[in-house]
Amino acid sequence: MRIVQKFGGTSVGSIERIKKTAEIVQQEIARGNEVAVVVSAMSGETNRLIAMSKDMSAQAPAREVDALVATGEQVTAALLAIELNRLGIKSYSFNGNQAGFRTDSSHSRARISGVEGDHLIKHMQRFEVPVVTGFQGIDPEGNITTLGRGGSDTSAVALAIAVQADVCDIYTDVDGVYSTDPRIVRKARKINYISYEEMLEFASLGAKVLQTRSVELAMNYNMPIHLRSSFDLIPGTIVSKEDPTMERATITGVAYNRDEAKVTVQGIPDQPGIVASIFGPVADAGINVDVIVQNVSEQGLTDVTFTVPRGDFEQTMTLLKEICSSMHASNIIGDDTVAKVSVIGVGMRSHAGIASQMFAALAKNNINIQMITTSEIKVTVVIDENYLELAVRTLHTAFGLDDAEASDLS
Amino acid sequence: MRIVQKFGGTSVGSIERIKKTAEIVQQEIARGNEVAVVVSAMSGETNRLIAMSKDMSAQAPAREVDALVATGEQVTAALLAIELNRLGIKSYSFNGNQAGFRTDSSHSRARISGVEGDHLIKHMQRFEVPVVTGFQGIDPEGNITTLGRGGSDTSAVALAIAVQADVCDIYTDVDGVYSTDPRIVRKARKINYISYEEMLEFASLGAKVLQTRSVELAMNYNMPIHLRSSFDLIPGTIVSKEDPTMERATITGVAYNRDEAKVTVQGIPDQPGIVASIFGPVADAGINVDVIVQNVSEQGLTDVTFTVPRGDFEQTMTLLKEICSSMHASNIIGDDTVAKVSVIGVGMRSHAGIASQMFAALAKNNINIQMITTSEIKVTVVIDENYLELAVRTLHTAFGLDDAEASDLS
Repeated sequence: MRIVQKFGGTSVGSIERIKKTAEIVQQEIARGNEVAVVVSAMSGETNRLIAMSKDMSAQAPAREVDALVATGEQVTAALLAIELNRLGIKSYSFNGNQAGFRTDSSHSRARISGVEGDHLIKHMQRFEVPVVTGFQGIDPEGNITTLGRGGSDTSAVALAIAVQADVCDIYTDVDGVYSTDPRIVRKARKINYISYEEMLEFASLGAKVLQTRSVELAMNYNMPIHLRSSFDLIPGTIVSKEDPTMERATITGVAYNRDEAKVTVQGIPDQPGIVASIFGPVADAGINVDVIVQNVSEQGLTDVTFTVPRGDFEQTMTLLKEICSSMHASNIIGDDTVAKVSVIGVGMRSHAGIASQMFAALAKNNINIQMITTSEIKVTVVIDENYLELAVRTLHTAFGLDDAEASDLS
Repeated sequence: MRIVQKFGGTSVGSIERIKKTAEIVQQEIARGNEVAVVVSAMSGETNRLIAMSKDMSAQAPAREVDALVATGEQVTAALLAIELNRLGIKSYSFNGNQAGFRTDSSHSRARISGVEGDHLIKHMQRFEVPVVTGFQGIDPEGNITTLGRGGSDTSAVALAIAVQADVCDIYTDVDGVYSTDPRIVRKARKINYISYEEMLEFASLGAKVLQTRSVELAMNYNMPIHLRSSFDLIPGTIVSKEDPTMERATITGVAYNRDEAKVTVQGIPDQPGIVASIFGPVADAGINVDVIVQNVSEQGLTDVTFTVPRGDFEQTMTLLKEICSSMHASNIIGDDTVAKVSVIGVGMRSHAGIASQMFAALAKNNINIQMITTSEIKVTVVIDENYLELAVRTLHTAFGLDDAEASDLS
């Protein structure tokens, strides 16, 4: 089997952790697998370098900040290669340029345009281990670029695709994706298999285990990701194409996001283009609008309600009040104490069925639903944030996700 | 004027020092000069990285150690470029690969084979400042190499040659080359102009202000070096081709080396090839032999005396005792309490004259000369190390080098 292994900041956070990480690589080689490794900077190192840059200048050019922080992964890659050689495994470190990571020129948030992996495959076939810096590449002019925070996951998937790996193992400090947040629901269970689409929904709802871009890339090239713990070598969660032969629960998990605020524009004339007059200025301000609900028009007037990240609430309210009269709206009201809860599952055959089951369960616990939205594989409700934990627990039980073996008292 | 400026570890040892360094660059730009900069790692950084490598493995592969330590200069280069931009000067950092430093593949002691400086010249002509990492390059296979400790001086000279600079300014923590060690002779004076040949003699005698390789390279391409202080912006010492029109003192300075030991092989048959039988094994052991004196043959037997670095003394003695009988030598004796004192000057017309003046001055102070050797521009004596300071002071005065304005009481 050919494997690309990715180790994040905590997995390489110290000399001791790098030694443990090398042992994980060694085990795969001992099993007869071909391995390439992608590493992040040692935890804290990127922040240390950025702080130095900020000490120097508040307006450091992005090109130079990229050149600066790219050294973080170069240090880790060299150290891990040194340790692998000590263990008797031939290993070579490669920075973004040497590994052939081509990107566009958007410093600090570059997109990978291609990876030239042929020379790395030659090493892998000899059971030598290329250790590649995540998070970085070079643009067409040879400038050092970075992919932005968390970009190392994307680097790993891109490398796995380039070397035609069978799987991309992403090692982190959690042992997989859970059916919901175990801090809220003790009976949350680890999901063994999850589809790319479901993983994207979990990721977009703040499950920070995998960067959204890396999942999208894996989905486009059908590259399986094995998300697992570098602290506990048990199987984690495999993210892959949905397998129709596999028996699946209707709902895979319950996700939530507390970082929400709700804004309602009341009494606007129900005319074509009116919604654009609201969301144009909001989008121009760089504010990300999520759930949007428009009421049925009454007497030619309508209400539009939408959610924004809580940190953008004040700015959104100010902005809309300024343009209130030009929109001919009667009023702007808002609430920044709401939260979003979603049930996710590719197995949901009928949104109506899932939704009614969801609403019944919430109603039974006196949880009022403020907004509803659905996507292909998700039903989302917006509720008062005070009821968030109760809602998550209620839905987790209602959809049969509780782990029978776990104890509420554990 | 086109200038390459090189700043060593102490000149970029902190955020504060990097800001000062940027001001020095800014001044040259303000004077209308075209500038490129070569930087070392922040002082202590290279040692920190090497310590990490040693923590990992006692036998770290040289390729990986090079990749690891090369990050040190990359950090400095980016930080200095950030600061220059803050000062309103367009500046770009370049690592060894980006700057086009081609080397051979001898990791940790690579030699520069060429520098592709054309893209840097374009920046310089627009008064943009390329900040280039010293000490590093890439080999023909694209591996990161380093030039070895102190290699940044050589990088700077190589870059100056590649961009056809008028001068290579090497900023350090001393303000120039002195006629002798000011710690020994208070009246030591700064040398304003020194020839490459003289500088090489000073450097080989342990004056650690400039790496020997950088002086050799500058000499080969006739690139003037201005050695000066980054703490005190006064003129330093200019190292250049000897200017025959310039009035020069006979002797430029007095150098010394305390790190010496003396070994004598007694009573060996005076036959062709006998000296090779001594120095062959010594050279094979990687021991650097310096002054060699062979006595006049008496009754077919001769003595050979030579000096080695003091750290190699024990090993040399052991080695020679082992091969004593095969050399048919009668005895091996040694002394590791000797020191070397040299007077240096391209102006010396007659070695005999300088030597006799030197011996007379030393004799007057009861300093016994154990060995004598001469080169084109140098007369060296080996003496008891207890007399070292006295000998240096005596010769400094005897050759008229004392600074009339300095006070012995200062």
